[in-house]
Amino acid sequence: MSRTDPWIQDRAINRQVTLVSRPAGEPRKADFKLLEEAVPEPGEGQLLCRTVFLSIDPYMRGRMNDAKSYSSPVALGGVMIGESIAEVIHSNDPSASAGSYVRFSGGWQDYFVCDAKDATVVLQASERGNTSDLMQLSRYLGVMGMPGLTAYVGLLDIGQPREGETLVVSAATGAVGSIVGQIGRLHGCRVIGVAGSGRKCDYAINTLGFDDCVNHHSDRFKHDIAAACPNGIDIYFENVGGKVFENVLPLLNVGSRIPLCGGISYYNLTSLPRGGDKVPVVMRALLVQRVKLQGFIITDHDDRRAEFEANMKNWLEQGTISYREDFSDGLALAPAALIDVLSGNNFGKKVVRVGKVE
Amino acid sequence: MSRTDPWIQDRAINRQVTLVSRPAGEPRKADFKLLEEAVPEPGEGQLLCRTVFLSIDPYMRGRMNDAKSYSSPVALGGVMIGESIAEVIHSNDPSASAGSYVRFSGGWQDYFVCDAKDATVVLQASERGNTSDLMQLSRYLGVMGMPGLTAYVGLLDIGQPREGETLVVSAATGAVGSIVGQIGRLHGCRVIGVAGSGRKCDYAINTLGFDDCVNHHSDRFKHDIAAACPNGIDIYFENVGGKVFENVLPLLNVGSRIPLCGGISYYNLTSLPRGGDKVPVVMRALLVQRVKLQGFIITDHDDRRAEFEANMKNWLEQGTISYREDFSDGLALAPAALIDVLSGNNFGKKVVRVGKVE
Repeated sequence: MSRTDPWIQDRAINRQVTLVSRPAGEPRKADFKLLEEAVPEPGEGQLLCRTVFLSIDPYMRGRMNDAKSYSSPVALGGVMIGESIAEVIHSNDPSASAGSYVRFSGGWQDYFVCDAKDATVVLQASERGNTSDLMQLSRYLGVMGMPGLTAYVGLLDIGQPREGETLVVSAATGAVGSIVGQIGRLHGCRVIGVAGSGRKCDYAINTLGFDDCVNHHSDRFKHDIAAACPNGIDIYFENVGGKVFENVLPLLNVGSRIPLCGGISYYNLTSLPRGGDKVPVVMRALLVQRVKLQGFIITDHDDRRAEFEANMKNWLEQGTISYREDFSDGLALAPAALIDVLSGNNFGKKVVRVGKVE
Repeated sequence: MSRTDPWIQDRAINRQVTLVSRPAGEPRKADFKLLEEAVPEPGEGQLLCRTVFLSIDPYMRGRMNDAKSYSSPVALGGVMIGESIAEVIHSNDPSASAGSYVRFSGGWQDYFVCDAKDATVVLQASERGNTSDLMQLSRYLGVMGMPGLTAYVGLLDIGQPREGETLVVSAATGAVGSIVGQIGRLHGCRVIGVAGSGRKCDYAINTLGFDDCVNHHSDRFKHDIAAACPNGIDIYFENVGGKVFENVLPLLNVGSRIPLCGGISYYNLTSLPRGGDKVPVVMRALLVQRVKLQGFIITDHDDRRAEFEANMKNWLEQGTISYREDFSDGLALAPAALIDVLSGNNFGKKVVRVGKVE
């Protein structure tokens, strides 16, 4: 690449959101810092990419801790991790020409360089349509991306839904939950959502087609969830933990399954919740009802991606599956977007529009 | 049956151990009462049986509570439930002649009547050998019975052991754990026991052939269990819960499995353990390490019994599997035997010798 590349000449600054302190509890904006660096230069076989859409997901909270997990933490002073859709600005590899769009874990920044072999081309330059088509590329971060695959694998492979079973989905209008419930409906399940507002519940019922949806902020939540599940629960898709899990537990049927996808109510904890250890209660319920509870991390399941993408493409084309995105505009809003996601203030898949689609 | 049956004439009293109060916490002997009733009379298709061996198992504690579970509680004033080996005294069915031995949930009493179709003949009258052969019939309550099948199904179907994996077994010298570990060895696992005394640990290593065994009463338990599992844990066979589970949790490998068979450390709890709710810690570990935790109740798995019995018979004949029984003598000692089992004071499969073998 030459520094005379006209695109770069105009935009020689790479803004980055870095992690400057590890939060205790809820992240604060002061835990992040916006830096400006030079735009990196791609080497042999590499691409220089300009971030257009940045995905904001609950798992990012875990990467802010210096704790052993399924992936390394973000280093202090390092760029926050995250998957994005980006335009190839300069290509040193024949697999993706400039003007193509790729998906890659580019992080919270305007530009990044990656090995072409590690990036997934979601739109070749030759297939570029108009701007409104390009705007839809964000779906590769959501319904057609990691959250969609998470829903697909967790529900079908671990949950193993059967016609007529009751499926309860927590974080029901979120990026994963909304897809879980809709795929559950396609498999003949009675689907009950759990969400954090009446508006979200209305959306789950009226737009997503769930059979019912219960607001976990209601004082009557314990009663409402039981009333919504008169035949008990056969699959509980776990995204949240905490109070929702506790109230689902007594409703589990014999032989029920819990795909354990996340526990967002725990992510900002700084100490064990008070009021006694409920592990004995959980274990007793899992034993007495012969429950299978299985944790999974979607990066283990790339072998399921081709089938998922083919099915989801059909469902979207047929209008069988709906999805909703919740955009924030501008890289500088990424910290606030994550804080919102962790407290349930998003409504749909959270995406930050970092760069113009043009 | 006629009251002139000479056997009954001599022994017309049926002693029964009944439940007279529901324990709060550890059962006390005063929760039980020894009654004397008339020996019941068998009807059409029924057997009158004389209890010889009574099995004492941890699950019995759950049946003493008036709580929803996988089986009904023992009624107040009712005879304590339990599986036994019994001699058929009088038969009104051709399937089991007098002098045969059967296995049946006869309860804590000298005599019972059952439908012949519900009893399992473990020795036909025509095959009766000498007294020492008859003494071995207790194995049908242990290694060849419910605890053996529990070990077999839990380890093989849920645990799915693979050559070279590390298997940790709690309650390692108990009726179930001792068999789990030995079957694990046969499948090429490195087997680490957890037991409650140095003597039990020595037995697990020297007689059962475990690779190592750790005493959970040691102050260094957390260190010892980690040191015994340098490659982490691939299967944790859960019989106990509590401190053992908490210290196993950080050692679980990615993709590990937890057959959830019991939680004996919880059975006598009267309130939630203090010190904060550890559910978030458990859920995080299960998620990050993609663990499958699955509860099971052995009565669901009768379809596995034939294969189990054939394999276990071979293993016993070849001397591949060892087992140990811990006898109490006399029906009146059954309450103390259960109290012992719940506090880990037994050493091997607990069996009460109720009647003479003759």
